[in-house]
Amino acid sequence: MIKHECGVFGIYDHDEAARLAYFGLYAQQHRGQESAGIVTFGTDGVHEHKGMGLVPDVFTEASLQKLTGRNAIGHVRYSTTGSSSASNAQPFLTNYKGRSIALAHNGNLVNAGQLREDLENEGAIFSTSNDTEVFMHLLVRALRHNDLPGAVKEACYRVRGAYCLLVMMDGIMVAVRDPHGFHPLALGRMNGSTVFASETCAFDLLEAEFIRSVAPGEVVIVEGNNVSSDTLIGPMPEKPAQCIFELVYFARPDSYIFDEQVYLCRKKMGCNLARESTPDVDFVMPFPDSGIYPALGFAQGSGLPYEHAMIRNHYVGRTFIQPSQSMRSFGVRVKINPVREMIEGKRICIIDDSIVRGTTMTTRVKKLRELGAKEVHIRISSPPVISPCYYGIDFSSRGELIAAQHNLAEITRKLDVDSLHYLSIEGLLGSVSQPQNYCMACFTGNYPVPCDDCGGKFKLEGSCGSR
Amino acid sequence: MIKHECGVFGIYDHDEAARLAYFGLYAQQHRGQESAGIVTFGTDGVHEHKGMGLVPDVFTEASLQKLTGRNAIGHVRYSTTGSSSASNAQPFLTNYKGRSIALAHNGNLVNAGQLREDLENEGAIFSTSNDTEVFMHLLVRALRHNDLPGAVKEACYRVRGAYCLLVMMDGIMVAVRDPHGFHPLALGRMNGSTVFASETCAFDLLEAEFIRSVAPGEVVIVEGNNVSSDTLIGPMPEKPAQCIFELVYFARPDSYIFDEQVYLCRKKMGCNLARESTPDVDFVMPFPDSGIYPALGFAQGSGLPYEHAMIRNHYVGRTFIQPSQSMRSFGVRVKINPVREMIEGKRICIIDDSIVRGTTMTTRVKKLRELGAKEVHIRISSPPVISPCYYGIDFSSRGELIAAQHNLAEITRKLDVDSLHYLSIEGLLGSVSQPQNYCMACFTGNYPVPCDDCGGKFKLEGSCGSR
Amino acid sequence: MIKHECGVFGIYDHDEAARLAYFGLYAQQHRGQESAGIVTFGTDGVHEHKGMGLVPDVFTEASLQKLTGRNAIGHVRYSTTGSSSASNAQPFLTNYKGRSIALAHNGNLVNAGQLREDLENEGAIFSTSNDTEVFMHLLVRALRHNDLPGAVKEACYRVRGAYCLLVMMDGIMVAVRDPHGFHPLALGRMNGSTVFASETCAFDLLEAEFIRSVAPGEVVIVEGNNVSSDTLIGPMPEKPAQCIFELVYFARPDSYIFDEQVYLCRKKMGCNLARESTPDVDFVMPFPDSGIYPALGFAQGSGLPYEHAMIRNHYVGRTFIQPSQSMRSFGVRVKINPVREMIEGKRICIIDDSIVRGTTMTTRVKKLRELGAKEVHIRISSPPVISPCYYGIDFSSRGELIAAQHNLAEITRKLDVDSLHYLSIEGLLGSVSQPQNYCMACFTGNYPVPCDDCGGKFKLEGSCGSR
Amino acid sequence: MIKHECGVFGIYDHDEAARLAYFGLYAQQHRGQESAGIVTFGTDGVHEHKGMGLVPDVFTEASLQKLTGRNAIGHVRYSTTGSSSASNAQPFLTNYKGRSIALAHNGNLVNAGQLREDLENEGAIFSTSNDTEVFMHLLVRALRHNDLPGAVKEACYRVRGAYCLLVMMDGIMVAVRDPHGFHPLALGRMNGSTVFASETCAFDLLEAEFIRSVAPGEVVIVEGNNVSSDTLIGPMPEKPAQCIFELVYFARPDSYIFDEQVYLCRKKMGCNLARESTPDVDFVMPFPDSGIYPALGFAQGSGLPYEHAMIRNHYVGRTFIQPSQSMRSFGVRVKINPVREMIEGKRICIIDDSIVRGTTMTTRVKKLRELGAKEVHIRISSPPVISPCYYGIDFSSRGELIAAQHNLAEITRKLDVDSLHYLSIEGLLGSVSQPQNYCMACFTGNYPVPCDDCGGKFKLEGSCGSR
Repeated sequence: MIKHECGVFGIYDHDEAARLAYFGLYAQQHRGQESAGIVTFGTDGVHEHKGMGLVPDVFTEASLQKLTGRNAIGHVRYSTTGSSSASNAQPFLTNYKGRSIALAHNGNLVNAGQLREDLENEGAIFSTSNDTEVFMHLLVRALRHNDLPGAVKEACYRVRGAYCLLVMMDGIMVAVRDPHGFHPLALGRMNGSTVFASETCAFDLLEAEFIRSVAPGEVVIVEGNNVSSDTLIGPMPEKPAQCIFELVYFARPDSYIFDEQVYLCRKKMGCNLARESTPDVDFVMPFPDSGIYPALGFAQGSGLPYEHAMIRNHYVGRTFIQPSQSMRSFGVRVKINPVREMIEGKRICIIDDSIVRGTTMTTRVKKLRELGAKEVHIRISSPPVISPCYYGIDFSSRGELIAAQHNLAEITRKLDVDSLHYLSIEGLLGSVSQPQNYCMACFTGNYPVPCDDCGGKFKLEGSCGSR
Repeated sequence: MIKHECGVFGIYDHDEAARLAYFGLYAQQHRGQESAGIVTFGTDGVHEHKGMGLVPDVFTEASLQKLTGRNAIGHVRYSTTGSSSASNAQPFLTNYKGRSIALAHNGNLVNAGQLREDLENEGAIFSTSNDTEVFMHLLVRALRHNDLPGAVKEACYRVRGAYCLLVMMDGIMVAVRDPHGFHPLALGRMNGSTVFASETCAFDLLEAEFIRSVAPGEVVIVEGNNVSSDTLIGPMPEKPAQCIFELVYFARPDSYIFDEQVYLCRKKMGCNLARESTPDVDFVMPFPDSGIYPALGFAQGSGLPYEHAMIRNHYVGRTFIQPSQSMRSFGVRVKINPVREMIEGKRICIIDDSIVRGTTMTTRVKKLRELGAKEVHIRISSPPVISPCYYGIDFSSRGELIAAQHNLAEITRKLDVDSLHYLSIEGLLGSVSQPQNYCMACFTGNYPVPCDDCGGKFKLEGSCGSR
Repeated sequence: MIKHECGVFGIYDHDEAARLAYFGLYAQQHRGQESAGIVTFGTDGVHEHKGMGLVPDVFTEASLQKLTGRNAIGHVRYSTTGSSSASNAQPFLTNYKGRSIALAHNGNLVNAGQLREDLENEGAIFSTSNDTEVFMHLLVRALRHNDLPGAVKEACYRVRGAYCLLVMMDGIMVAVRDPHGFHPLALGRMNGSTVFASETCAFDLLEAEFIRSVAPGEVVIVEGNNVSSDTLIGPMPEKPAQCIFELVYFARPDSYIFDEQVYLCRKKMGCNLARESTPDVDFVMPFPDSGIYPALGFAQGSGLPYEHAMIRNHYVGRTFIQPSQSMRSFGVRVKINPVREMIEGKRICIIDDSIVRGTTMTTRVKKLRELGAKEVHIRISSPPVISPCYYGIDFSSRGELIAAQHNLAEITRKLDVDSLHYLSIEGLLGSVSQPQNYCMACFTGNYPVPCDDCGGKFKLEGSCGSR
Repeated sequence: MIKHECGVFGIYDHDEAARLAYFGLYAQQHRGQESAGIVTFGTDGVHEHKGMGLVPDVFTEASLQKLTGRNAIGHVRYSTTGSSSASNAQPFLTNYKGRSIALAHNGNLVNAGQLREDLENEGAIFSTSNDTEVFMHLLVRALRHNDLPGAVKEACYRVRGAYCLLVMMDGIMVAVRDPHGFHPLALGRMNGSTVFASETCAFDLLEAEFIRSVAPGEVVIVEGNNVSSDTLIGPMPEKPAQCIFELVYFARPDSYIFDEQVYLCRKKMGCNLARESTPDVDFVMPFPDSGIYPALGFAQGSGLPYEHAMIRNHYVGRTFIQPSQSMRSFGVRVKINPVREMIEGKRICIIDDSIVRGTTMTTRVKKLRELGAKEVHIRISSPPVISPCYYGIDFSSRGELIAAQHNLAEITRKLDVDSLHYLSIEGLLGSVSQPQNYCMACFTGNYPVPCDDCGGKFKLEGSCGSR
């Protein structure tokens, strides 16, 4: 199971800033289910509400009403385990000389461990284990001799890695995207207000207007009626390194990121996949919901019928009571239930977006076999994941990545399928309009930014997951 | 919006009866989201837990552990409003001469108002407003001179309408389905235990074996190691009158009811619909999730591409904070979001299972128009709903049924669509294998059982909704 | 530990009836901590909210706002265990021919078991295990040919035992106290509204005016602007049999019941106790809080210093986490902590109101010995409890009553005290102004009303506890 | 109303450290009702649980079980208002070079504002608004070149004011009390474990043995099997300045602090008060609960009868629903209800421990007048409070202190009492055994430690309340 990333949302100058932030996070819930938080700046001071759980569980009408003020930033963080998770919820809020600074971060810094050691040697103290606090320290130090936009740029000059940041002080909001543009960040307008979101689906829910993406290396400053753009200091990379996995899996299909419409892009991947390898089967079927969009493309590309024969339980996601002892492999079954009459005696081509560890896939294939599937073929709409991500995606460690340990034949055997094909790197890049602008590290092992902290010396959590 | 019916579940002689009942109800959550309840009979007495809300919200590990005993029945009830809803939660539990009787009911009695008046004239008191309590009174009176199976038969002789009942006393469980067999009731086995459920999808989750449907007019008695079958007394109708709307909309697509596999049956409806009227469009698209299965059939029948271009928000269903004043028609948008790039400039054929009041449909079509759809055609996989249901389905009243008030041209205009076609009655019946065995009253106004209470004199709530 | 009784509250014709009922119950919380409930009659129908727990836990602002209407009755029930407790919460609400009837009951009927058997033989069904439902059945049957006041009188003619009842239908409220007047019931005014409460402390909190007690055998009818008084039918007992234990322990010290001010009455008991037996000690000390008032009287009567050297933990009463394994006899210690310096080397006279099983007393005396008390003398402000109560007080069963099993010398030894004296029956009766008007059955075994159900045949719960 | 201080608890080397900390805090709940927290150090890392509310509300069995480890410190904080209160809950936990440091603080630093400014100028960032974080910064800086005990001493050298601190790192716990010893801190043993608590009542609940108080200026270090004592660096004051208000009001009467047994000490105050001014009345009565112990002393000293005629509602403290519009001065009435029959026509002497703003006193006297009291005399067991406290007690500001604004005659008139007398400073000091060792600043305005932050420049919250 791939863990989602984080999502951020900001709104400047609106009567109902907190309420809109709530819905802006709600629309981006898929990017983080562990915790949620909103910070507002009002005339009566700064207000903060954070908690563990889904957005509707963290906030109540009462908690929202306390979040007064016209400016707000919010954050959702994905699900993980660990004792210190509550204090790691964002936005990160600190006080500096009587002024409050709020910070929401999506991404992972790759030199945060080294920076933290340096800061600790100078006497800095840390109340969390995540890299966002490192950035906050750098920011505050820069604020001693700089204004907020200048301080943000100065702090960014010292960090390396993936970051989309929303920074807010009284009367000013700054949005910044790292020079490689690993993760998406969108700029919008809503009546007279300026809005930011990781994905445009948040704008759709609010009926805000999508203006454009914040560019890699860009700093957007909103202050009063003024929205201005600036650029990070220091040398810029030759080309962006946008996370292709956002398109493969993370982003909501109704979002528009990296100049791509996600739904169409996924269909393209499925279509290219069909071109590369279409088995002789009765029909094509996705593993819901991630496989739906490439499966549609695969069906249209191959001319095979599309079926939707695994029924998703809509109420999954809520807390459960433990299943009975007599209910084996319940976890898989409760999420999707195959329609026996569609499976029995059929040759089936299953489409999914990726295979990470392979355990869920194995259980599901086994279930299809039990129900009498004659043949089961798997087509995956991305290449094999062979390398860990340092920039914010919590794949399992290398040791658990099935494709890092096994070749195609071995995986085919382990999954017990009749055939298996992954979309080629060319096929994947052929699905996007600017193929040179993507980070493909998880498929290739070529990292656009080397990870300073990855030698084993530092074990710092990223704001959105451990490396 | 059509309100769902109720769902029942029973399990006899299992170590973890309550826990399995919990999951049996969970799998049938789509049949009722208002309240849930389980009653168990243990060696240490009878235990009951009921509450308002979804199954995972009503039960906790602690409440489940108190439900000791090897026999259990459970019930889910759909969402409605009204002051007395909590006490209407089922199973209904009563004491008679030191013995407890538990009763779970799916369906509506059509002479409960008259029966209640008679009972009240004899001094009976009622603590709820639903028809299940009327049945309980009849049952207890019959128990004065009869054993449980006999008393159930005697009570059933006096009631008319739709009922699937699970009745439990110490050491015995009785399941009964009314002579018309309006609603489904399945019998299964799970290792040595006997299980009952409204739909077979509950068996799939438990990995119980589906044996057969309880027949219309059949009484199944489980006592000790013995499972026996009996028949209700009195004249039987010539043919069953099974609720076709279970196949059109209610039942889960992975269930098997009325000798039909629901997924396949819905595809057949879509296929027949395509035969009746295929517009010249770019693609076919369902309104998720109810339209998915007929849309698949429509696409395959028409040869048109299938798209899934309205994205469902997976987290809908939880309690919300009220949207902002600036968010118009939020309720529709939060559930599904259309992918703009798929809509703009396209000629689209939308498939849905039914139109009741037409308000949701109107709003969605309007949204598609705003996004630039060139043409919007609607195809509905069932005939126009023109008459209310007395047997357990909570359509809006006749006055609110759009098809009872308007002809096809008027509806087409009201919805602002380029064309509209409903599946014909023949087309619908052509989708099932035993067309003579269905109640079509909501489409035709021909009621297989007249409603005694419907003259306006009685206003009794059905166990699963008001008439 | 003696379990408290129940408390009732009614208010007729007030803008904020539910809110006042809430506070009326809150002030009487000491009479019942198990469950609480309020029923209101409004122009928009009948509303009910009941739940397990303390009044502030059962009701929220939201639940209170739903309880619209100008008339309300409420009930608190004491803490007990048992599976069916939730459904036993009161007021009991039923529907009869489209009209709602609400009933709140304090006391125990002694022929409810026999009546229930008769009713069940006639086909009546019961959804709870308590005697209040029996009364409701009788009431409804009488309503077939009688108005509410008449029906209440007819039903009361058939029951025997202890009952203070508040009965409400649309537009009318009836209060009745059984002919023996076992438990208190007060009538008050609050601006233009009529109020009823078990104890006058409820009136103090509301600043309502206490008019008088409802007399034994009296029926008070409130309808529109009219408050009228009537008398129960049938032969009346020669003299009342008011529960002396209300004065000894149950009632709040600031209440005025049975023409006695409870605080003063308890002081009188303590004073008489001092006259009967004052030991040679350093000071007098109560077991808080029940012993405080007789201890004050004892100190003043004996001239001994009064000390308050056991400190009560104010936060007790909330749910706890289980204590550690290393914390023996934690339950006693967490409630009151003796001040070591006051105990060490001292000769102490402890005052308490009663001894039922003697276990708490034993543990506390042991603790005082550990802290170095030189002598411990116990004086009890009531006679030994030797017989169970059938009228609403949940003493332990006879087998657990220490004084039913042991004589004074044995109890003195078991408690390990230097001396022990109980107030004599004469001393107790000398503390009240009308000694002939009390039930002394728990001290004498002379029952004013024989218990029909007590032969072992019937095991029906009283509305306020099992017999 | 005087707000309580904070309370701390620590336990070193016990199987059930968190559970015992829970009860140690529970026993000290009177010292802080706003928030509670526990940090444990286990072999599996550091665990933290904090929350707003009372101890039993903050912790559940589940949250306690996660707090594994043999060493724990805990903290309760009093009730206040303010947006940032949640993050101000203690213990304060930080990470420094991979090691966790936990800190619990009772008291107020008087130079924290200046220190914070200095730290911020050096680039330090702050996530809370309280002075404990300032101490943590100093501690971490000292840890760069010192071990924990050394670093604690170094940090303490820079701060001034009132502090009892428990500091914990892996394997070591350090307790320190400031040189003036403003607040109490007790050292105890429990089997083989070392325990610390603000008050000995915590030891009583755990049945731990009280060894001795930590001395002013003492540092106690617990590491492995070794408990050693050290002394703070820098010049020590000539004599301690223990907070006399702990004895007057704060501490629980069953605690032993500052070499005084609190119950006995308060009785002595009451006794001295009687010597100074005994009015000619019918009886003496406390305002519960704070007035009980001086009232007992007053009664014994004056020979007047002691009465307890204001009944406290035991269930107060829980969340309430708002009272009705028709319930004036409800807040006072719900807490204590006077017994009318004891008040009417009586000359009463009321004892209380202090008067701060005088509002509650005024309302209560008014109520006694309404009930017909003939004379009301007030005796206060401490001198008039004329100056604010900088060391941890949250009196109202000077402007609200009734005795800072008015002389005795004016206060008597404002309260509408027949006479008023405050215990003299000599009378108060005559109630303790070492009168030279106390801070009397609130009564005299002589501050043992000047407040650097009080010139208006700094507005930093103390860990236990604002200055």
